[in-house]
Amino acid sequence: MRRESFPPLSKAMLGRLARLGQKKHRDSEGLFLAEGLRTVSELLQSLSDPSMLHALVFDEKAAGQLDGLERFAGKAWLAGPNEFKRLAQTTSPQGVVAAFRKPESGEFRPASARSFVVALDDVQDPGNVGTIIRTAAWFGAEAVICGRGTADPYNAKSVRSSAGSIFALAIDTTPDLAKTLRRLQADGFTVAASALDGQDYRFFAEWPARRVLVIGNEANGISAEILALADRRLLIPPAGARPAVESLNASVSAGILMATIHG
Amino acid sequence: MRRESFPPLSKAMLGRLARLGQKKHRDSEGLFLAEGLRTVSELLQSLSDPSMLHALVFDEKAAGQLDGLERFAGKAWLAGPNEFKRLAQTTSPQGVVAAFRKPESGEFRPASARSFVVALDDVQDPGNVGTIIRTAAWFGAEAVICGRGTADPYNAKSVRSSAGSIFALAIDTTPDLAKTLRRLQADGFTVAASALDGQDYRFFAEWPARRVLVIGNEANGISAEILALADRRLLIPPAGARPAVESLNASVSAGILMATIHG
Repeated sequence: MRRESFPPLSKAMLGRLARLGQKKHRDSEGLFLAEGLRTVSELLQSLSDPSMLHALVFDEKAAGQLDGLERFAGKAWLAGPNEFKRLAQTTSPQGVVAAFRKPESGEFRPASARSFVVALDDVQDPGNVGTIIRTAAWFGAEAVICGRGTADPYNAKSVRSSAGSIFALAIDTTPDLAKTLRRLQADGFTVAASALDGQDYRFFAEWPARRVLVIGNEANGISAEILALADRRLLIPPAGARPAVESLNASVSAGILMATIHG
Repeated sequence: MRRESFPPLSKAMLGRLARLGQKKHRDSEGLFLAEGLRTVSELLQSLSDPSMLHALVFDEKAAGQLDGLERFAGKAWLAGPNEFKRLAQTTSPQGVVAAFRKPESGEFRPASARSFVVALDDVQDPGNVGTIIRTAAWFGAEAVICGRGTADPYNAKSVRSSAGSIFALAIDTTPDLAKTLRRLQADGFTVAASALDGQDYRFFAEWPARRVLVIGNEANGISAEILALADRRLLIPPAGARPAVESLNASVSAGILMATIHG
């Protein structure tokens, strides 16, 4: 199919897509936006079901860089710089924006006796949320559970940081993370939480088959309620008695803990 | 000292500071900018020598949030929103910008028989450069050596990501990282490099007292020349035969490797 056969984006469709920049519209429509050639390509490659793509919008230049566009006939549109200015959340939209369906997210239930889950307690930076999802996918996590205060994983920045991994695991949100963690404990999960008064994370040689790692807020760490229910509190010790910096970045400490715990 | 005693920022000084947004001016002046209350406070706290502060610019609101301003009399100025718009590299400048002296950076020489060093080979994202510096400081690295193509560690975004750790270790830049690494090898350093065809990083139980970890480009990894000279090639294996995502974020994989290697 030649690119000339893709129709221009209508004003009505532009308006609908642009609204997905806001969480309330993502939630009510069950859709989210991804932007940039790399992010959109990664997501298209990871799609098990092509109907998860809702709309693909690109400019003349990007049309030549996207593979297999003919698969998306009927939901692919050409647009120009003015449309991209309205659609893109980032400063350089690179001529590709796509809307995908958000996967169904019911209450998480582990699929088997072994399960590794990551939970986010008030992780506010969307870049951290996306990077943690990406790392969780690398280490085979079954789900990422987002507690209150956590940035929307379907925010454009989070989607970009997740590098196409957003369909690779279940993404659940819960208004009461402590309650969800207690339910998981009742299901045999060990809850591990990073904490400044914790034990060296390398101390625990054995991990049960079901485990959930909780990552806390960038400045304040994990809330008292969740620390109190955690089965294991983990510390990543700095080198030297007085570290040269106050803390690790949340995505980095999450990665270090996941690398050891994922099992 | 009352805040009224701080003079308004002059136009000439504003111009000089604003130019530090460009690398060539940072290099020629030997200064760099930090912005935002948190970043500036972290750097002020970490200053061993107050003369490393060149200029501190704040608005009325921030004046009440900065501790010990009287120490900086003579190089502290009040400014308003228009000045901050010119000074700030980020979208929300938060009313504080400071210029600091760049530490002297000669060719790196280890201070003792034990030394852990991190080298950056074409790490292009300033956020990654800053986050890796922060993680290196946490794990007691003696230096971070920036090879060609690596984002300027004194870029405002990198400074913010480094979370006040920029004075905690030596930051060296080199036009020929391979040559620098060969020099370190001659000094007894083991060069470890992350590589997709490497061995599981957990395989190496023992690490020599002197070791340097090389982190590569976000998309292309470490250059062939440096991979060829590396003593150890390290892989962070994904869970499962077919990982759900193509790669880890550069800062995250750097953190995982540093946590194991720093010794």
